[in-house]
Amino acid sequence: MNILCEVAQSLQVLVTYLICRTYFEVKTAKMERKQEVLVVGMGAIGTMAAYAIQSGGQAKVTAVLRSNYEIVQEFGFTIDSIDHGKDIRGWRPSTILRSIPDCRDGSKQYDYIVVSTKNTPDVAPSLIDLIEPVIKPEVTTIVLMQNGLNIEKPFRQRFPQNTILSGVHLMGASETSSGTIVHNEPDICKIGPFDNSDTNVLQERDVHITRAKRFVEIYNACGKVNCQFDENVQFTRWHKLVYNSSYNSISAILGMDVTRMRVYEHVIDDLVKPIMEEIMAIAGAAGVRLPEDLPMKFITIDSPDSWFMPSMGQDAIKGNYLEFENIVGEPMREAQKLAVPCPTLTTVYGLLRGMQAKIKESKGLLEPRVEDANKYRG
Amino acid sequence: MNILCEVAQSLQVLVTYLICRTYFEVKTAKMERKQEVLVVGMGAIGTMAAYAIQSGGQAKVTAVLRSNYEIVQEFGFTIDSIDHGKDIRGWRPSTILRSIPDCRDGSKQYDYIVVSTKNTPDVAPSLIDLIEPVIKPEVTTIVLMQNGLNIEKPFRQRFPQNTILSGVHLMGASETSSGTIVHNEPDICKIGPFDNSDTNVLQERDVHITRAKRFVEIYNACGKVNCQFDENVQFTRWHKLVYNSSYNSISAILGMDVTRMRVYEHVIDDLVKPIMEEIMAIAGAAGVRLPEDLPMKFITIDSPDSWFMPSMGQDAIKGNYLEFENIVGEPMREAQKLAVPCPTLTTVYGLLRGMQAKIKESKGLLEPRVEDANKYRG
Repeated sequence: MNILCEVAQSLQVLVTYLICRTYFEVKTAKMERKQEVLVVGMGAIGTMAAYAIQSGGQAKVTAVLRSNYEIVQEFGFTIDSIDHGKDIRGWRPSTILRSIPDCRDGSKQYDYIVVSTKNTPDVAPSLIDLIEPVIKPEVTTIVLMQNGLNIEKPFRQRFPQNTILSGVHLMGASETSSGTIVHNEPDICKIGPFDNSDTNVLQERDVHITRAKRFVEIYNACGKVNCQFDENVQFTRWHKLVYNSSYNSISAILGMDVTRMRVYEHVIDDLVKPIMEEIMAIAGAAGVRLPEDLPMKFITIDSPDSWFMPSMGQDAIKGNYLEFENIVGEPMREAQKLAVPCPTLTTVYGLLRGMQAKIKESKGLLEPRVEDANKYRG
Repeated sequence: MNILCEVAQSLQVLVTYLICRTYFEVKTAKMERKQEVLVVGMGAIGTMAAYAIQSGGQAKVTAVLRSNYEIVQEFGFTIDSIDHGKDIRGWRPSTILRSIPDCRDGSKQYDYIVVSTKNTPDVAPSLIDLIEPVIKPEVTTIVLMQNGLNIEKPFRQRFPQNTILSGVHLMGASETSSGTIVHNEPDICKIGPFDNSDTNVLQERDVHITRAKRFVEIYNACGKVNCQFDENVQFTRWHKLVYNSSYNSISAILGMDVTRMRVYEHVIDDLVKPIMEEIMAIAGAAGVRLPEDLPMKFITIDSPDSWFMPSMGQDAIKGNYLEFENIVGEPMREAQKLAVPCPTLTTVYGLLRGMQAKIKESKGLLEPRVEDANKYRG
């Protein structure tokens, strides 16, 4: 009986030891092997994503800064955040760089690259060319935190062996001056693998899902944000397009905030609502069933007090490039493929393209010549 | 034989005398009874019309000046004209007024009132109210030298006993500074009575035609311009709309000149040409057959060297009200009546209406209130 008791006790000790060891091994592994995350595009959204990821402690963030490099190098970021605290001063990612690093010699490897730049595929140089030296085949997961449709297609073509994740943010944040971020609507973020069923590599989908869930874990580790695994990336993207294709485009063309559009009801009736309904119809034809009341919900979603100017409107006013190809151009091209009429979207696309030509001209990327005007032959 | 000869000679003298008397009577009548012409709207086109009319000697011109009253009162107009001469200084109409006169006491009567203001029926006060005190029923002929469709309708409703003429100019002229006119494309003007067959007063049409022809005579008397009697006013107006609805609107929305639109071919292909084709289709459905090659003719009509900015584009840049209701709104409404699709025109109309709201706001005519944004219920 004593012997039996001793054996039982020994077994209990052993089991307890094994459980504890496994627990600590996992814990230690996580602590020791922090994920390496490179963030390209440290505007308001990119910076808040970098902040959440780094403060969670499961990853080290390297950030590529451009216009705000000097100021962040010297003073760090100044952040007023509804999620993380009101008066954050001097915050810096683990490493800051002036340009995208070249990892082709193998000395450095990133587990994730977060791309949160503005998405302007019509403006050279191509972001895909710029990030190519970072991407290790099969290893680096590319997280596209950008708006719009079909943004993953050129990446999948160039990096067929890498996982590409969709990141869609619903947060409100803006860089009020260089290195200063005001983050005033909570960070709700949806991360999931892009649908790649068309590439006949469904067996890889599990890998993509695991990597997406791991990223969600890293992002949520700070305990202050709401990052969700996204099972249906296409739904999320079409859903957000209903707002972006309409309010963003019209704000850019008219230089008008959302409150004014609602005060001047005809702007909603003539323009915003028709575009929303066209996007709903295109999504439907593409097999994405959005809730029928979505247009009305989005029309009145912003608080009128905020006189909110959508980001594309802000860019237009500042003379910055407009992010319209994936927000307006791609849904329009989907509509053409699916034979869905989208007359308002089509005209708005033509106007945004004309505005972009003027912006390119102002930045020296285009120079109109009289001789070229004579070439027009219809 | 002698007696017969004398009778014949006397008859010859008598006939000659009668012919001469008739000729001089007519001539004298014309010289003595100069027509009284009031010009309302002394921008570039109004001033050049006033100049042609007055210099022909068959009419006295009274002009209503607003922003340029002081400078013209002191120095007269400075005109550089392709038709009338390069260095005209100190020219003044017979009479200049600060405001539209009140003729209701019968002390003064105008044979013609030329309306050459910008046509913005959506901006109060209404021009029709302003000119009412000038209009003597059955006597005063109203000449509408303005662009667009259906411009005569509110005038015909208010002044059913008066002749209303259409005046369409093809001249190029601009007021480069207050009181200074550069007139660089020849004055070709078409004058004719508006079609009033719908009012069942066809018996009056002869009167309207006579008055139109008399006005053409007055306008042409200077011998320097090409004013034509217009038998088909609707054709002329739809014809000009093909250019105005397209190039003018797009220049206003994009702030882009015609040369750049042709250099950036997509602006023509995506916007200008579709609108032109929509106007052609609406005109066709309205029974006006325009030449099929008109869009291509108009697309390339301006010399690229001129980097020509259409008037609505100029107004948009200056923050002036946009003349879009009769140039874009009316053809769109005709299309709706006739069930002709015009998606590009419709979207462009919505955008111009939004722009006009902003312009009204900038001039204090509208003030957006947060409470009104909350009212939007779809």
